[in-house]
Amino acid sequence: MELRLAFIGFGNVARAFARMLVEHRSALEKEYGFRCKSTAIATAQHGCITSTAGIDLLEAAACVERGGNLAELPESVHIADALSVINICKADILFETTPLDAVDGEPAITQIRTALERGINVVTANKGPIAFAYNELKTLARDAGPSFRFEGTVMDGAPVFNLVESCLPGLRVLGFSGVLNSTTNLILTGMESGKSFEDSLAEARRRGIAEANADYDIDGWDAAVKAVALANVLMQSDVRPADVARAGIRSVSPADLEAAARSGMAIRLVARGERILDRVTLSVQPESVPLSSAIGCVRGTSNVLVIETDLMGQIALYEDNPGLKQTAYALLSDLCTIHGKMLAKDR
Amino acid sequence: MELRLAFIGFGNVARAFARMLVEHRSALEKEYGFRCKSTAIATAQHGCITSTAGIDLLEAAACVERGGNLAELPESVHIADALSVINICKADILFETTPLDAVDGEPAITQIRTALERGINVVTANKGPIAFAYNELKTLARDAGPSFRFEGTVMDGAPVFNLVESCLPGLRVLGFSGVLNSTTNLILTGMESGKSFEDSLAEARRRGIAEANADYDIDGWDAAVKAVALANVLMQSDVRPADVARAGIRSVSPADLEAAARSGMAIRLVARGERILDRVTLSVQPESVPLSSAIGCVRGTSNVLVIETDLMGQIALYEDNPGLKQTAYALLSDLCTIHGKMLAKDR
Repeated sequence: MELRLAFIGFGNVARAFARMLVEHRSALEKEYGFRCKSTAIATAQHGCITSTAGIDLLEAAACVERGGNLAELPESVHIADALSVINICKADILFETTPLDAVDGEPAITQIRTALERGINVVTANKGPIAFAYNELKTLARDAGPSFRFEGTVMDGAPVFNLVESCLPGLRVLGFSGVLNSTTNLILTGMESGKSFEDSLAEARRRGIAEANADYDIDGWDAAVKAVALANVLMQSDVRPADVARAGIRSVSPADLEAAARSGMAIRLVARGERILDRVTLSVQPESVPLSSAIGCVRGTSNVLVIETDLMGQIALYEDNPGLKQTAYALLSDLCTIHGKMLAKDR
Repeated sequence: MELRLAFIGFGNVARAFARMLVEHRSALEKEYGFRCKSTAIATAQHGCITSTAGIDLLEAAACVERGGNLAELPESVHIADALSVINICKADILFETTPLDAVDGEPAITQIRTALERGINVVTANKGPIAFAYNELKTLARDAGPSFRFEGTVMDGAPVFNLVESCLPGLRVLGFSGVLNSTTNLILTGMESGKSFEDSLAEARRRGIAEANADYDIDGWDAAVKAVALANVLMQSDVRPADVARAGIRSVSPADLEAAARSGMAIRLVARGERILDRVTLSVQPESVPLSSAIGCVRGTSNVLVIETDLMGQIALYEDNPGLKQTAYALLSDLCTIHGKMLAKDR
């Protein structure tokens, strides 16, 4: 099977995925029986193109990284904008990786809606559409047939959504708690070991972990948007980021961290979701937790999600110091899942 | 869809599952569209029966618990032994939950082989068949068509095998480490808090966590058998329990635990698997690990498995203080998975 891929957004994450795809091309063909042909890329600053012959992803990545325009690539056709690309690309799977818009999730939502309406399977690593329009997009995916996958939106390629969907049948998620934002955890645990807030933030920027606007991380917006995604997908809720009781880490001082450590505790930016009566209540705030606990032991960019269930009690998924590779893997994982579903439909 | 169930072994785990099944009967029918009819139960001490009319699982559990014989149940037909039950029961799914035999995994292997050869889907919570005959049984399942599921053999219903099979496509498991035996962990963390070895072991017995022969736990056999299961399933190995470098917890003294705690460490019975060149090397032994780490923070009956992968780095799955309910859920989860596969085949 040949899968035609289109990319909306071709930043750090998409390019890391593109390189992973090229590197594992023969393994994927051998193990799963599919190969990929990239037929469209849309970017905000490096042009938008389609190509029926197929785009060389390594050349495209190099072009973007040297500040060029994708229209320079051989056999490429310049297209006006992302939405036009979606309308004409005839892709099987669209990878939406534009930056998070924490106000209303646009224009990613419109782009995903358009793709799903055209029957194109969609993979996104963008939390906005899940936080602001999950229920609408999910219904659209169900009705029109294409898949809508978004494993990379929370904890990168650690299988948070797939775990509940595929591996925990028959149970109910009652609540969750976790450390979901790598930048603030790198800052807090950096400060624990004596580094300054600014130096740790600079390290997060250097490692490509921080949001384009790091205030989103520091003030808890990123974690809040992820909490909303978890609530809407895993707890069948319909909340929005503004519904989250939210406090960031600006108020946490080195003295607070030292005092906590002296009593065997750690301060972490904890995202929580609880079902109280029929409502799901969400919070993101610095909490003091035992150092030696599933949440307290999380250091650096590591993340953890504790899920409270009716039939299995508490289980937790822990991701050790993720970087770009782990987010790229989320897209690869969604690609394989969609291929599996396409195979099942063809039968 | 009506699923006919047969039980080989009707001990603590099977009875907890039976009660879960009855309790969630209408939820399962509503959500997944299947209902269950139990047509056979085989036990070592309470008789073996079949029933075309269907066995009332609550009555059967009560009968076993009062020391009765299952042949007392209405409309039941007495059968000579478990193997005869498998040969005549015409079940869709067989639940094999007889006790672990750590020498050669029999008679469970023969029972499972017989069922698979007859086209019956098999769910087991028994580690023996996975440790001693996984590759043979897996091939049989693949050739003959029925499913062979065993999620409960390691970390109860925490989805260890399903996680890798369903949620981590395209990557390689390079190794693992973890705390996999609840009894020894309850003893070690009990001793950390000042309890005696014996009192903690008695607590494990009281909670139905300890193996029938607790030496299997204490000397590391149970963890070794689980390590073999992980290696054979997740790392495509073909090792046996005797291949594991194994040491139990008898040598760990309260003084060792105190000394470790003073330096921020904890002693845990750690199971490890590593691929060295083309061989998978396994060990089970007490290790000193940081208290504040994914492995060190595991207390009481809690378990954790850290998986090292090529594309996702390290991820860990943590199960908080499991009891019988969590093992029962493993069987429910496998039941739902098999139902899904039966549906897909029918299409």
